[in-house]
Order: sequence, then structure tokens, then C-alpha cells
Amino acid sequence: MGSTTGIKHSPPQAGRATHTGTQGTDRAAETRRRILDTAAAVFADHGYLGTSLNQLIAATGLAKGGFYFHFPSKQALALACLQDKQEQWIGKVMSAALRHDRAIDQLVSIPHTLCDVYEQDPSYACVGKLSLELMEREPQLVPQVRPALLAWVRLTSELVRRGQQEGDVRAELDPDAVAEVAVASVIGIEKMAACLSGGADFRRRVEAFVPLFRDSIAIRKGGGDGTSDT
Amino acid sequence: MGSTTGIKHSPPQAGRATHTGTQGTDRAAETRRRILDTAAAVFADHGYLGTSLNQLIAATGLAKGGFYFHFPSKQALALACLQDKQEQWIGKVMSAALRHDRAIDQLVSIPHTLCDVYEQDPSYACVGKLSLELMEREPQLVPQVRPALLAWVRLTSELVRRGQQEGDVRAELDPDAVAEVAVASVIGIEKMAACLSGGADFRRRVEAFVPLFRDSIAIRKGGGDGTSDT
Repeated sequence: MGSTTGIKHSPPQAGRATHTGTQGTDRAAETRRRILDTAAAVFADHGYLGTSLNQLIAATGLAKGGFYFHFPSKQALALACLQDKQEQWIGKVMSAALRHDRAIDQLVSIPHTLCDVYEQDPSYACVGKLSLELMEREPQLVPQVRPALLAWVRLTSELVRRGQQEGDVRAELDPDAVAEVAVASVIGIEKMAACLSGGADFRRRVEAFVPLFRDSIAIRKGGGDGTSDT
Repeated sequence: MGSTTGIKHSPPQAGRATHTGTQGTDRAAETRRRILDTAAAVFADHGYLGTSLNQLIAATGLAKGGFYFHFPSKQALALACLQDKQEQWIGKVMSAALRHDRAIDQLVSIPHTLCDVYEQDPSYACVGKLSLELMEREPQLVPQVRPALLAWVRLTSELVRRGQQEGDVRAELDPDAVAEVAVASVIGIEKMAACLSGGADFRRRVEAFVPLFRDSIAIRKGGGDGTSDT
């Protein structure tokens, strides 16, 4: 595996640092990007188990040698692909969230942004599929994949905590527990949408979830019958 | 496929009606049951894609001919297994729910019963795994598998509706939307537990979810800051 870098949980684009001079480096980086983008789309469609290494190589249009120079195995490519797409995903989610002032609004913006992201680029579905499948099927990879899932939980619990400080979220809730439930709900909604509509009704399901979730954590300023804050 | 019955969405135990007289029928029924129970455990551990037909045959200890007499393919066995376990599952969930008087209590008992069921017999995990995987990987089976998922949604929405009639659940909620979100949440919780702890922390996650869910749908009799009914 020696020179095929960038496949571990090392700095993101370590693969660019090859020993072939600037031009070769640029081309290698370009090829690596092309492989990652192509693989994301294939994994998004077929999942990890449902995709073969030959299928991935064929989709990139590279000769086997060219492919193996970058990624020695399906597993290595899946890990790199997951990390790459998840970084982009967090970037998009956070920039959309930061358009809101209050943490509770940032929090409930996340599932909506997810809908936008999947609609603009369906290959993002590889993040959910790869992280769940890799952890279930390849237990030895859990330490490498878990951070991708926990980053999402942590992001959420941080926003719940800030929502409490800002007086919008019920103080008696445990932010970590809320975050785990919220992330699980969105994962389940994604699964159900994938199963029942090939993902087409994901947004409709998210839109049913968000107000219920908000009601379950928000301090109700109106009080009384639970018809939520005015 | 002719005489190997019981593999379609036909009456549950049609496979018992073979043409070999009562004794042969009993033995066939016994073998069929053994195959279903064995397969449920294997599918629960490895999922649909992660299990090979040879692995299933080996696990039953039958000769190939004896196995094929009952189930012509992995797909046929998976469908029968899903239907069989789901019937048992609904029976357990409903009998536990019916120990409570009010619909809202019946409703929130379901995830707790799920924990009991999985702890008593881990092979029940095949219900979730098979229904999700079959629908995602074998789109032509969606019409056969979807009812298993929708039965759970329907059961839930019926309880939400009755909870509204009994004055416990907020009248303005759409019971079908609540049910879809609730089922999705539990599916996601099961997935996260499977990924992060091999299922070991499923109960802890369910116990975080249930009060939040209850709060999101219940009429709060105390009113005010959302610390729920006394």
C-alpha cells in the first residue's frame, strides 16, 4: 500500500503530495478528485455492499493501474469518499445554519438544508449509506467511521445547548440525548424515504418532522394547550 | 417453483399443505419452521446482502434438496422470514400495548416492547434489516415488502387518532404524519444503535426518545414552560 496515500484518516488531501513534481501532482490530484466524485455517485446509488470494485473502476474510465495508484481497495475508496463528502456536507449545513441568529433556528435549518443538498447533488446520499453500512458490515472500521456520525451528533447537541442558553430550548433537556434522538430521526426518515419512494418524498417527511421536533424541545411561550408559541 | 408454496404474500402457512399425508405434512411444517427460525437469526446478524444462500442452507443443517423443497431462493426465504417474524412481532407489540387503557400509553409502550423483544430474541432484528434492505436493493419487491413497514405506520397512526379522541394528543396534529415520523425515528435509533454499539445501547436510546416524543404530541395539562404534565 506504500505510496497510495490519502486513504486513511489523515489530513484530507494528503494524496496530492506525490513525488512527481508539480505537474504530475496536479494531474494526480485531478484524477483523485474524479475518482472520489464518481465513486460518491455510485455508492449513493448502490451502497457499499451493492457496489463492486470493478464497477467503480469502470465508472471512472481509468485503467486498473491508474485506479490502484490512488486507492488500493473498495474499502479505502469508500473511507476516503465518506470523509470527502462529509466535509463538504458539513460546510454546506453550517453555512446555511449561520444565516440564522438563534441556535434553535440554526438547529431546525439542518434537516431542510439536507433536503436542498440531496436535491442539488444526489451523490451526497453516499454519506449516510456508507457510514451506516461500513459500521454494520466492517466492525473493524467503526473507529474510523464513527467520527463522521458523531460529528453530526456533536454539532446538534452544541446547538441545543446554545438554544438553552438563549432561552429557547427547555432547560431540563439533556442536549446530548436530544441530539442523538434528532440525528437518529433524520437517519430513519432518510431510510424510509429511500425505501418507499427512492428518496423522492424525503422533503415531505422532513417537513412533517421539523415542527414536531421543534415543539418537543422549545419552551412554549403561549402555554396551555400545546398549540405552540404564537 | 410449483409445489414449494408459502413463499408468496399468500396465507401465512400455506407451505404446510403438501401432498404427502398428515405425517409428511407435520414433518414438512416442522422443517419449514426450523428453516424460518434459523434464517431469521442469520439474517438478523448479517442482513440480506451479507448472507449467502449456501450460508443459510449450511445453518439449517439440511441437504440442498430438502432446503429447496421449501424455499427455491434466498429471496423467497427472506420474504417468508420477514412475514413470519413480523406477524409474531405485531402480536407481541399489541399484547403489551393492550395492557394500557389509554391510546397514548399504548403508543409509547411500543418502543419499550421492541427493546424487550430484541433482548429476548435478537433474531427479531431481521424484521428491520430485511424490510429496509429488500426495498432498497430489490425495488421489484417493494410491493411485497412495503405492507410490513406500513402496518407499523398504520398501527401508530391509529393510536395517535384514538389519543386525540381521548383528549391526550394535540388535536391539530396529522396522525399519519406523526406516525411516519415516529416510525422513522425508531428505525433510525435502531440503525444508530446497530452501528455504534452492535445494538447494545438500543434501550438507552429508546428511553431518551420516548419522553421527547410524548412531549411533542401530548396536550400539556400544566401549561407554561413546557415541563410537561405533572
